[in-house]
Amino acid sequence: MDTMDHERLKRQLEFVVEIDRLKSVIRQTLLIDRSRQENSAEHSWHLAVMVILLSEYAKEKDLDVLRTIKMVLVHDLIEIDAGDTYCYDEKANLDKAEREQQAAERIFNLLPDDQAQELRALWEEFEARKTLEARFGAALDRLQPLLHNLNTEGLMWQKHGVRSTQVFSRNRLMEEGAPLLWDHVLTLLEKAMEDGLLSR
Amino acid sequence: MDTMDHERLKRQLEFVVEIDRLKSVIRQTLLIDRSRQENSAEHSWHLAVMVILLSEYAKEKDLDVLRTIKMVLVHDLIEIDAGDTYCYDEKANLDKAEREQQAAERIFNLLPDDQAQELRALWEEFEARKTLEARFGAALDRLQPLLHNLNTEGLMWQKHGVRSTQVFSRNRLMEEGAPLLWDHVLTLLEKAMEDGLLSR
Repeated sequence: MDTMDHERLKRQLEFVVEIDRLKSVIRQTLLIDRSRQENSAEHSWHLAVMVILLSEYAKEKDLDVLRTIKMVLVHDLIEIDAGDTYCYDEKANLDKAEREQQAAERIFNLLPDDQAQELRALWEEFEARKTLEARFGAALDRLQPLLHNLNTEGLMWQKHGVRSTQVFSRNRLMEEGAPLLWDHVLTLLEKAMEDGLLSR
Repeated sequence: MDTMDHERLKRQLEFVVEIDRLKSVIRQTLLIDRSRQENSAEHSWHLAVMVILLSEYAKEKDLDVLRTIKMVLVHDLIEIDAGDTYCYDEKANLDKAEREQQAAERIFNLLPDDQAQELRALWEEFEARKTLEARFGAALDRLQPLLHNLNTEGLMWQKHGVRSTQVFSRNRLMEEGAPLLWDHVLTLLEKAMEDGLLSR
């Protein structure tokens, strides 16, 4: 490799080292064995495997699976600086956008320019939720913690006093990207209310 | 959805819940902040992001990035039953293949048949290391813990009494899939020996 290539690889590997910190960003989701709360790196892995398994439920037939997987793999990187903002924490959500833009500016620009642009574009596409891929990724990003809550007797909902109206209102955007999955989730949520996991 | 589709989705979601257990499989790699050991789910996430960033270093130009990412995302799922086998533990490696085949049989078959076959084929391709994609994925699977060791003063090498000859012999297969990355690693390992992180 010539000198310039070497500098490029050095920046790429520094980025690989930097993003290790996502493994220490803790989410308000319990692991299903309830042993601890989930971190954002393993959450991103879970979503990427879900894209592989559930792409047939995307709203349209021509889902770009690779772009969707890339998006979910990088969608939380800004949390390295901005932290995970609990979706039902209204106060923390007030300055979320600003904190996340600043984080994106620093973190993605650790990479060589072409890759900084590619990853930032993926993150912005995910956030904007305009494309099929972003909407499907967002649907899985809602489905995964729902499955965790439903399989841990709703402990985190109860801890944070989350009510069914909040859960419905936050998660109904699943319908934009994965209507069949949303239909299924509705039956699961109905049952959770019957069973007392989620207060009406 | 008709009844059959509903059964399919149910199996897919049960699999999504089952693989949460990969987050509790602990590896012999320290996080770079040294706060704890890494688990196999977040390790798989790290590799998938590395495929996105480093695919230009694959030995040949026509790397199938999607198949490589899928492979690294699922390559450790069998550890849910078989556990993580430390690469420098010779005794544990004696029955590794058998334990992992049994695990593959149970875990992948939780899925609907077509997807069980797809994921098992990806895992077997990764293990066989015959294709460019498998070789490149394997190279990253070596590079990532090396970066962790190099950035944590080689603490895990020292804990397990790992010597440079073992590190070279285990990792030189990087050359098959990513020769430029292997060249770079050689200079890093030389420096690690000079600095006393790794015993000669």
